[in-house]
Amino acid sequence: MTEPTIRTVAVVGSGVIGRSWTRVFARAGCETRVFDPDPEQLARALDWARDSAREAEAHGFIDSAAAAGEGRAIHRCDTLDEALSGAGWVQESGPETLAVKRRIFADLDAAADQGTILASSTSAHDMSRIAEGLAGSDRCVVAHPVNPPHVIPVVEILPGESTRPEVLTAALTFLESVGQSPVRMNRYLSGFLLNRLQAALIREAVFLYGTGAASVEAIDTVVREGLGLRWALLGPFGTGHTNADGGAREYYQRYGDAYREMWRELATDPEFSDRVIDGIHDEMEEMYGASATEALCAWRDRLVRRIRALKDDDPPAGPTRGTDR
Amino acid sequence: MTEPTIRTVAVVGSGVIGRSWTRVFARAGCETRVFDPDPEQLARALDWARDSAREAEAHGFIDSAAAAGEGRAIHRCDTLDEALSGAGWVQESGPETLAVKRRIFADLDAAADQGTILASSTSAHDMSRIAEGLAGSDRCVVAHPVNPPHVIPVVEILPGESTRPEVLTAALTFLESVGQSPVRMNRYLSGFLLNRLQAALIREAVFLYGTGAASVEAIDTVVREGLGLRWALLGPFGTGHTNADGGAREYYQRYGDAYREMWRELATDPEFSDRVIDGIHDEMEEMYGASATEALCAWRDRLVRRIRALKDDDPPAGPTRGTDR
Repeated sequence: MTEPTIRTVAVVGSGVIGRSWTRVFARAGCETRVFDPDPEQLARALDWARDSAREAEAHGFIDSAAAAGEGRAIHRCDTLDEALSGAGWVQESGPETLAVKRRIFADLDAAADQGTILASSTSAHDMSRIAEGLAGSDRCVVAHPVNPPHVIPVVEILPGESTRPEVLTAALTFLESVGQSPVRMNRYLSGFLLNRLQAALIREAVFLYGTGAASVEAIDTVVREGLGLRWALLGPFGTGHTNADGGAREYYQRYGDAYREMWRELATDPEFSDRVIDGIHDEMEEMYGASATEALCAWRDRLVRRIRALKDDDPPAGPTRGTDR
Repeated sequence: MTEPTIRTVAVVGSGVIGRSWTRVFARAGCETRVFDPDPEQLARALDWARDSAREAEAHGFIDSAAAAGEGRAIHRCDTLDEALSGAGWVQESGPETLAVKRRIFADLDAAADQGTILASSTSAHDMSRIAEGLAGSDRCVVAHPVNPPHVIPVVEILPGESTRPEVLTAALTFLESVGQSPVRMNRYLSGFLLNRLQAALIREAVFLYGTGAASVEAIDTVVREGLGLRWALLGPFGTGHTNADGGAREYYQRYGDAYREMWRELATDPEFSDRVIDGIHDEMEEMYGASATEALCAWRDRLVRRIRALKDDDPPAGPTRGTDR
């Protein structure tokens, strides 16, 4: 891993997302300061970070020196000022309410050093609204991770209307330097990229199950043993690029009309009632057991890391992928 | 691998899909008879099957005894009758035109033994139409693979209106016994499951790129380093099941309204013009190189097999998954 381009980081809010961010920054070698107004949540987050690093060590994802170094890099802070002092990056992961985000960002902007970048983990709000009226609105940026960011690398970066271009660039560079896969979204749309793409797939899946066309297991299998295997390697456009000898142009020109025709047939507003939700849940319990969720999450995270390792060890050839990575 | 439940198989049509099917059946130990009305295409298909098995051996996916056994299991047939003689399963992979499929199925139904199941690789047509009026329409079934089926395991099984339930059951059992992941679709809808789900995702991806919200690379990265990592392990519903402590019920009840709201915002008929397609292709060339398609496909197939091996070696715990698999 490269050296982080920002060395001191403050994590503000230590719930499920915030605590996972502490592992991202600390394992990359950042001095990582954690603050939460709730001291009990803060204590739990630090315990979790230690246990999570030990588990990563036990599975061979990191070695014991790395786990110990990560532990030493995390600092519990009892005040916001203490956390922000000297931090070049603040990762806000507080409650997902606009009014609360606005209040937190006002506090952050008042207390942080002038050059500090203020990033929000929000999945829902426009930075133009969160930072509206702040003196430092030009240093505020959305950095929306996928839960949990220490396992799933993608982070969506969105500017507010006042965000300086250099802040965007620095955000992308920094998150890449700590081992994440930041992507830039050019303007706010509700759901950003990831949740919109997820909602598009889920809508059709809910329709196919709810109308009796297929079982929950059949639909999951089609993705798990079909579409998802390629999407995890190439994404949707990259998959199209490998579906014709002439690449994406040939593929989409040949099937463009078929896609347009199918788009007209897809579900728009499928039934998503308790009946449908209960049916999904019941099939899930049949497949994975009633109380398997914690074990299933641990399995998921372990396998995600192994898939990432496969890709790191054997990247696709190409001008921007390969020997220089 | 278990023993195949049907021992002798005919592959009719030896293009890209048909030739890949020969590998599926032959490596599972089926006596595999291949027929194509075009003898040159047939010769190329047999060469390809041999080279592909050697490549799998070179990458450690199969050993040399398996590769040799697979080679011995494939038989070139010069007539349809020769291919069908004694076959319990016929996999038709001819041109994707209804009139052609109907003609081929009439020939198959006339020539095949009475108990033989007649399966079509069609991705587009309803078996009710393909087998309409045939004496043996009750033994005809759609078995739509993903290209190439020797790499991607999912197969969509659809009945026609006359298909006997036992034929459906036998199709699911047989394809599972040769190492595929068959799923049952209960009735015909254009695109079946897989292409509908793919079209739903691509529509939103085309919209997000075409309207300038994000680059092609950003959209692919969100799937490749985010959504796709989970979908390759759990599918869309399984992913929801791991997103809340209480499983799928809690997750979809909590976020049901958010999904419904987002569904109203998603693209319906985005611009999919030459401008958009050229832009996608140009970014693909920047990412993967102008002429990398063959190398990229080889990489994709190699990594897909490695992801499958990861999942086989470490399956999720649960009542239907785990020690009994």
